[in-house]
Amino acid sequence: MTWGAVGQTRIGLLGAGTVGGALCELIAARRLGVQVAHVLVRDPDKPRAAGVPTAALTTDPEEVLAGSEVIVELMGGTGLAGDLMLRALAAGKRVVTANKAVLAERWDAFAPALAAGTLYFEAAVMAGTPAVAPLAGVLRGSRPLELHAILNGTCNYILGELETGADFETALAEAQRLGYAEADPSLDVDGVDAAHKLTLLARLAFDPELSWEAVRANTRGIRHLTPAVIKEAMEDGGRIRLVGSVYPEGGAWRAAVRPVYLPPSHALAGSASNRNGLLFRGDAVGEVLITGAGAGAAPTASAVLADLLDALAARPGPSPLRAAAPQPDGYEAHPLGEIK
Amino acid sequence: MTWGAVGQTRIGLLGAGTVGGALCELIAARRLGVQVAHVLVRDPDKPRAAGVPTAALTTDPEEVLAGSEVIVELMGGTGLAGDLMLRALAAGKRVVTANKAVLAERWDAFAPALAAGTLYFEAAVMAGTPAVAPLAGVLRGSRPLELHAILNGTCNYILGELETGADFETALAEAQRLGYAEADPSLDVDGVDAAHKLTLLARLAFDPELSWEAVRANTRGIRHLTPAVIKEAMEDGGRIRLVGSVYPEGGAWRAAVRPVYLPPSHALAGSASNRNGLLFRGDAVGEVLITGAGAGAAPTASAVLADLLDALAARPGPSPLRAAAPQPDGYEAHPLGEIK
Repeated sequence: MTWGAVGQTRIGLLGAGTVGGALCELIAARRLGVQVAHVLVRDPDKPRAAGVPTAALTTDPEEVLAGSEVIVELMGGTGLAGDLMLRALAAGKRVVTANKAVLAERWDAFAPALAAGTLYFEAAVMAGTPAVAPLAGVLRGSRPLELHAILNGTCNYILGELETGADFETALAEAQRLGYAEADPSLDVDGVDAAHKLTLLARLAFDPELSWEAVRANTRGIRHLTPAVIKEAMEDGGRIRLVGSVYPEGGAWRAAVRPVYLPPSHALAGSASNRNGLLFRGDAVGEVLITGAGAGAAPTASAVLADLLDALAARPGPSPLRAAAPQPDGYEAHPLGEIK
Repeated sequence: MTWGAVGQTRIGLLGAGTVGGALCELIAARRLGVQVAHVLVRDPDKPRAAGVPTAALTTDPEEVLAGSEVIVELMGGTGLAGDLMLRALAAGKRVVTANKAVLAERWDAFAPALAAGTLYFEAAVMAGTPAVAPLAGVLRGSRPLELHAILNGTCNYILGELETGADFETALAEAQRLGYAEADPSLDVDGVDAAHKLTLLARLAFDPELSWEAVRANTRGIRHLTPAVIKEAMEDGGRIRLVGSVYPEGGAWRAAVRPVYLPPSHALAGSASNRNGLLFRGDAVGEVLITGAGAGAAPTASAVLADLLDALAARPGPSPLRAAAPQPDGYEAHPLGEIK
């Protein structure tokens, strides 16, 4: 048996962009013995990455759903992607996804699958760097106190450019030229992508009922940051980063995304601008820091493949808490200086 | 139902030292609804931590095994602790342990339980800081390239003292006075404890057949380090730390524990001396760093409690690879300067 071999399960891919291509290459390199049987795409004639089996391309979602035992959703968006996942889950199939938006905004619809552990979404947050699994697993041994995380690579890149003296529009244009930012960059630079990811982490470790609307209302992006503000932060040896936080406030868990000043001593300040970082504080475990790539085709495909291995072995996926974690009595969260 | 409630399962504790006491307190604070039904101790008259149910204390292992549905082993050692765990596993019970020594040295005996996922040992490496779970889970989405980890808190403390100018004997005596080091400190300062932990990580992510003897033969401790050597490292802004590494060498995975020089730019050099750190490089995910407390009663109990939650929910524990991960072709591992 080869390393990681798991039999001839038929996999259905929804979407075959850069992550899908990287996943097909990983599956082939690992000789998993799975078969990528159906690949849903909009345009079958578009060129695809080397590992994508062109004979499996189809524009018919029904073919993918009917002919696949495990579904991997990489098409993105909160509409059709979510509808197809829900149908596959309702039909008893296991589903792997990298789609933070649909889970953040339509979480309740996925509740039965989340409770059953048939939905896998490690790739939705920080790509292949462990985030979903630790918060739904090992770190549950402690009561949560607070969490702070750098979750968006595009904002990191732009902030790094601002540190070199570029203005926001120039930095954004460069990020778009390099393929880091979409033509419509608002999901990234307005903090929506980070808010989607934070919502998932917060529901796993703090409050399963946290609403998307509440997080969205506490979200601000980086468009308003000027070179002068960045320069001032750097004079102190610190950095400005878009940080998503969960912390106790007024008897409830508050989740917010906003640019903050990180002093040089802060654990999240040390990461390079191409890395994401997650800082968790728990009552028993203390402070845990996890850093690594937070985006990119290969790191994202790495997480998808790990989830696929779990799905194929029928290991249950992450389940949310059954009730909100209790507020820590008299605990003062470590404040971060918000940049207005 | 309270946060995390899982019913009235009867738990049997083997050992009730500082970690056992901390665990009993966490269980009570979380209102898990489990019952610590039996607690095996050597001396029932010795004072115990507040949370330990004194009525459950017994010196009879048979009572614990017969009357408990889940066994939590915190007594340590490679003899009786291992024998009792193996008997519980053979009887179909799930077992949680913090015992890295017995798993490193008697791994083959635990093979059936490891394959079945009925043995849980997150606490055995880096306490409640995620280590076992990521290597047996998310990080399996990438082929491993190399791993470097700071795994022993006592050595970290002593090396921190050496950095202030103390000599080894003085630093060791202070570590013993503070309770960081045992009266017989050889497991820590000769690198054996780190080698036990590294062996587990290497088997989960690199080679399931890696022998304890091979790792032990590549292990050197910190007794020979002089203040002059430490001082020289600090002059470059770097640090000397006891690091366990796994990397490809001559067509096989080599695992070694030894004091190395970490330049200031190295990811593991930034951690405070009271923290452990794990750096994993994979082909798709790139470099992932996880740091946090690596010892202590509460952080260790945090990992035990997380494992206990999994065991109670019958979520499978970590399983080793089925075959060694392939050597990366032409890959040059990042060398670390060994201190002779």
